[in-house]
Amino acid sequence: MSSKNDTEVIIDGKIYTLSGYESEEYLQNVALYINGKIADFKGNDAYKKMSADFQRTLLNLNIADDYFKAKKTADRLQVEMEAKDKQLYDLKHDLVAANLKLESYEKEIARLKKKESKK
Amino acid sequence: MSSKNDTEVIIDGKIYTLSGYESEEYLQNVALYINGKIADFKGNDAYKKMSADFQRTLLNLNIADDYFKAKKTADRLQVEMEAKDKQLYDLKHDLVAANLKLESYEKEIARLKKKESKK
Repeated sequence: MSSKNDTEVIIDGKIYTLSGYESEEYLQNVALYINGKIADFKGNDAYKKMSADFQRTLLNLNIADDYFKAKKTADRLQVEMEAKDKQLYDLKHDLVAANLKLESYEKEIARLKKKESKK
Repeated sequence: MSSKNDTEVIIDGKIYTLSGYESEEYLQNVALYINGKIADFKGNDAYKKMSADFQRTLLNLNIADDYFKAKKTADRLQVEMEAKDKQLYDLKHDLVAANLKLESYEKEIARLKKKESKK
């Protein structure tokens, strides 16, 4: 069980102390990701001319966009996964049926050969 | 091809005009999601006592956390998918082999029966 801990992260040059159950490594990664977004934005001339408020909202929208896209990918993969599970189930079923048939054929061949040798 | 369009969204009670290639429906969904987060936060006493700056950063971190979790899920599903593809490939191979064996057994049985009837 993880215990609650305080982690200091730097976001946009300011220090924030976060209290929670997430690991320091995880939170630093999240901070790194947010700082990367901010750095990208700061390289954009149109962004520099925006109000601080609009800049913040744009950052939120941009992160939320990443979330929606990752979620869409996860949802798509989940659907594909279910289709593959169904395919796997059917194939396993077909393989079991084929193996049973093989077994009965082997018996039939053995029976016919035995009969043949007796004649 | 989608064309660039302007969409007005309301985030935290303020109107923002967003210019981009995303559909209005998509952007409204993203705004709805962000507003939901803000509403959740506003119901929290500790949040109310925070500075506006800390509140904003917390919102950024919270959305980024959703992104990281969705991405982790997508990455895990991708790995599982590859394992299932390998399993499917192997099963298909086994089924083809079993069917070939069945075919040869069928021929063998037919041959033995023919021989038997001739005697």
